Amino acid sequence: MSDRDSHTERGGGGDGDTWDVIVVGAGPVGENVADRTSAAGLRTAIVERELVGGECSYWACIPSKALLRPSAALDAARAVPGAREAVGDGRLDAAAVLARRDSFTSGWRDDGQVEWLGSAGIELIRGEARLAGPRRVVVGDRTLTARHAVAVCPGSEARLPSIPGLADARPWTSREATSAKDVPGRLAVVGGGVVGAEMAAAWAGLGSKVTLLMRGERPLPRMERFAGDLVAGGLTARGVDVRPGTSVTEVRRPDPAGPVTLILDSGDGGDGGELVADEVLFATGRAPRTGTLGLESVGLEPGSWLTVDDTLLVDGVDGTWLYAAGDVNHRALLTHQGKYQARIAGDAIAARAQGRPVPATARADAFAVPQVVFTEPEVASVGLTAEAAKAAGRRFRCVDYDLGSVSGAALRADGYTGRARIVVDEDHEVLIGATFTGPDAGELLHAATIAIVGEVTIDDLWHAVPAFPTVNEVWLRLLETYRDS
Amino acid sequence: MSDRDSHTERGGGGDGDTWDVIVVGAGPVGENVADRTSAAGLRTAIVERELVGGECSYWACIPSKALLRPSAALDAARAVPGAREAVGDGRLDAAAVLARRDSFTSGWRDDGQVEWLGSAGIELIRGEARLAGPRRVVVGDRTLTARHAVAVCPGSEARLPSIPGLADARPWTSREATSAKDVPGRLAVVGGGVVGAEMAAAWAGLGSKVTLLMRGERPLPRMERFAGDLVAGGLTARGVDVRPGTSVTEVRRPDPAGPVTLILDSGDGGDGGELVADEVLFATGRAPRTGTLGLESVGLEPGSWLTVDDTLLVDGVDGTWLYAAGDVNHRALLTHQGKYQARIAGDAIAARAQGRPVPATARADAFAVPQVVFTEPEVASVGLTAEAAKAAGRRFRCVDYDLGSVSGAALRADGYTGRARIVVDEDHEVLIGATFTGPDAGELLHAATIAIVGEVTIDDLWHAVPAFPTVNEVWLRLLETYRDS
Repeated sequence: MSDRDSHTERGGGGDGDTWDVIVVGAGPVGENVADRTSAAGLRTAIVERELVGGECSYWACIPSKALLRPSAALDAARAVPGAREAVGDGRLDAAAVLARRDSFTSGWRDDGQVEWLGSAGIELIRGEARLAGPRRVVVGDRTLTARHAVAVCPGSEARLPSIPGLADARPWTSREATSAKDVPGRLAVVGGGVVGAEMAAAWAGLGSKVTLLMRGERPLPRMERFAGDLVAGGLTARGVDVRPGTSVTEVRRPDPAGPVTLILDSGDGGDGGELVADEVLFATGRAPRTGTLGLESVGLEPGSWLTVDDTLLVDGVDGTWLYAAGDVNHRALLTHQGKYQARIAGDAIAARAQGRPVPATARADAFAVPQVVFTEPEVASVGLTAEAAKAAGRRFRCVDYDLGSVSGAALRADGYTGRARIVVDEDHEVLIGATFTGPDAGELLHAATIAIVGEVTIDDLWHAVPAFPTVNEVWLRLLETYRDS
Repeated sequence: MSDRDSHTERGGGGDGDTWDVIVVGAGPVGENVADRTSAAGLRTAIVERELVGGECSYWACIPSKALLRPSAALDAARAVPGAREAVGDGRLDAAAVLARRDSFTSGWRDDGQVEWLGSAGIELIRGEARLAGPRRVVVGDRTLTARHAVAVCPGSEARLPSIPGLADARPWTSREATSAKDVPGRLAVVGGGVVGAEMAAAWAGLGSKVTLLMRGERPLPRMERFAGDLVAGGLTARGVDVRPGTSVTEVRRPDPAGPVTLILDSGDGGDGGELVADEVLFATGRAPRTGTLGLESVGLEPGSWLTVDDTLLVDGVDGTWLYAAGDVNHRALLTHQGKYQARIAGDAIAARAQGRPVPATARADAFAVPQVVFTEPEVASVGLTAEAAKAAGRRFRCVDYDLGSVSGAALRADGYTGRARIVVDEDHEVLIGATFTGPDAGELLHAATIAIVGEVTIDDLWHAVPAFPTVNEVWLRLLETYRDS
């Protein structure tokens, strides 16, 4: 199951090793840049050192959601009397979940994606790409030249902290956590961000005894606080031992085939004790894959994130030729936002090559980035949190509503627990942020994204009537609460 | 579980039998009118002849969704390998579903709603209301007078066709279909509209052998055709015998405690045979509850729908005092749209009573009415269908996308089957209609409602990025399809 754009047949192919556009990295972001430039008639090559389809298709979005969905669906059935009895004491079939995950990753084979590249007229060059000065890319013994642009879309990789013993303890990163073939009896997860919270939910659902360790007070520290608190509660209800304020000071795994011991610091200087697990996942942040990209050949720092303008042109490089889209520019480490940038970068490259005005800029990166965390329960947010709005000096008011009090949610599940918040700019009476937390809350988000991007006023939102009895009726309750607050 | 607005404590009560505002009908619509006028400081009485909370709370939206949700939740679990095995051959527990339905209707008792009226300072008068000239309402032996306004919100009731034998066959209407205490072995459903399609899905899920008879070619004839076709397929997959082009010419039930026989006409003049069932539901349309409302005393026709302006003032009545909100004005027979009208009517009554300008009109009734049909699969629509846009002479283009091809839908359920359509006004490049059909498609709708009401342009919608991998990514696919079509 791949993630790529629709496409049409086009002519393509190289002219020696000179191309109109060279794209580095064939994840969804690189694929989308190439699709746009190729569709515009530019001869486009794409370079990939691993699997075409990228992190998202094989070791991130897709397999993680394939691991998470079955537990969520089963929990949803258990939450409704009548269906609950049908499930009875039936348990999730972990082998079936893993097999389905394998089919979504095509068994970590990229044939389907390679075929699509061909049909889109994009030339695939396998190997590691290295910039070698302006418009030049070396791949193995080939030196490619770009007439118009090079777009780097190498993505990011797990960043491991410097902890004694960690290097020898073969820890899981997001890659192993999404591709593991067996369910560990005991899994320690270090880090309460998106990867940590999602993988704790997934593997607990699959039967692991999971311990989630995080330095901060709650999971998902960049989200609204209530979201992290609800996730802590949801994970605990699924059997996860959630331990805030805890860090790992040492890792011991004397026998590589045996269990791993984590030495913990409980944060107040006290002894946090030890934790023994069968596997340990370190989900402690991401680093750009720019260490071996040859950035030094164009005056940039190897290993750094790349700063770009709103057409995705890299800052600090002479000429109008080097673009960077996706995780590597550190604007938003999210597949969909990278694809958004890719569409804009591809169109900008084509427009500049053909002497047309650039049709659009990546303006949404600045104020309307959506994110759905498919943990237990789901958390969906877009735009500014209350804290971020405050830090930005905005004049705003935020209102909350208990999602479980909405008829549609109560009908959906007994004991539905969730919360919604909108952040309203009081100068313009428009939404600047929204967060929804609860079972299936992810699909509630797009309404808020459209409201923010479209700058739909509160006055107008009163005329956007939510259908009764859907969970979306929370919009009416939020407006009422805003009016009365 | 009631459906009403949040409220605050207010003083209230009558002044003899003279009130500022008299509301007739204490369903969600009447409750919302009264809440608004009472909140504005107007002394408000509400008259109800049955249960406070109305059709929606006891015999429509709420119990129907309580009957439908458990099957949907169980089907959703069965659609995901891993969860599927947990369900195994477990069957829906119909008794548990019916018991949960009973709790959502509070056992058909209105104590909770009555208590809310009191806390909102609204006086409840039990009995049948009849207009007796301008600003006068008779209830039993009391004659009430309204200083400012009378708002009639009596709702609608099932309309039975004139078919020989039907009157003696004690057919189910929407009331019996949502409140029945037992699951009939064989249920015949006459009518393929919303009530028929929903109740066929609900009772088939609960174990009835359901036959759905409709005159037209497909269920939900006012929706996009593909929606009706998908519902016909979904109902068939749930075991419903869907029979288009079929009408009932006679009903026989010689023994009131025995089975009922329907004589059918297959539409081509041929003999449609007979159908024997244990119960028969006639879901063949609605009639306004205005037959005994005393309309003749103010120059209107008893039994007619009432025509209103955008402040919900009834046309053809002298003075500015008679309002009609909800089903009775025939604008949109939907609880949420009636509540929308109620908010506007209540505010308009208060504004006129207090010499302020009317703050808002019910403009969304004309172009942005959302509807979710919780059948199998769900159908959600807002604004114009392609056919309605054509009839209205709009210059438009519509594009479709297969929901099952969206990664988020494929992850959600194996074999996810659904379809989305947007209708785009080509003069202004804004949405004027949208339909989503598929499992859980109902929650996708509000994004489209906001886009239509906010007149968000297609150009702007490209910057409203759907989160990956949600089902909402269909928005990106629809925009791409629109661009390329």
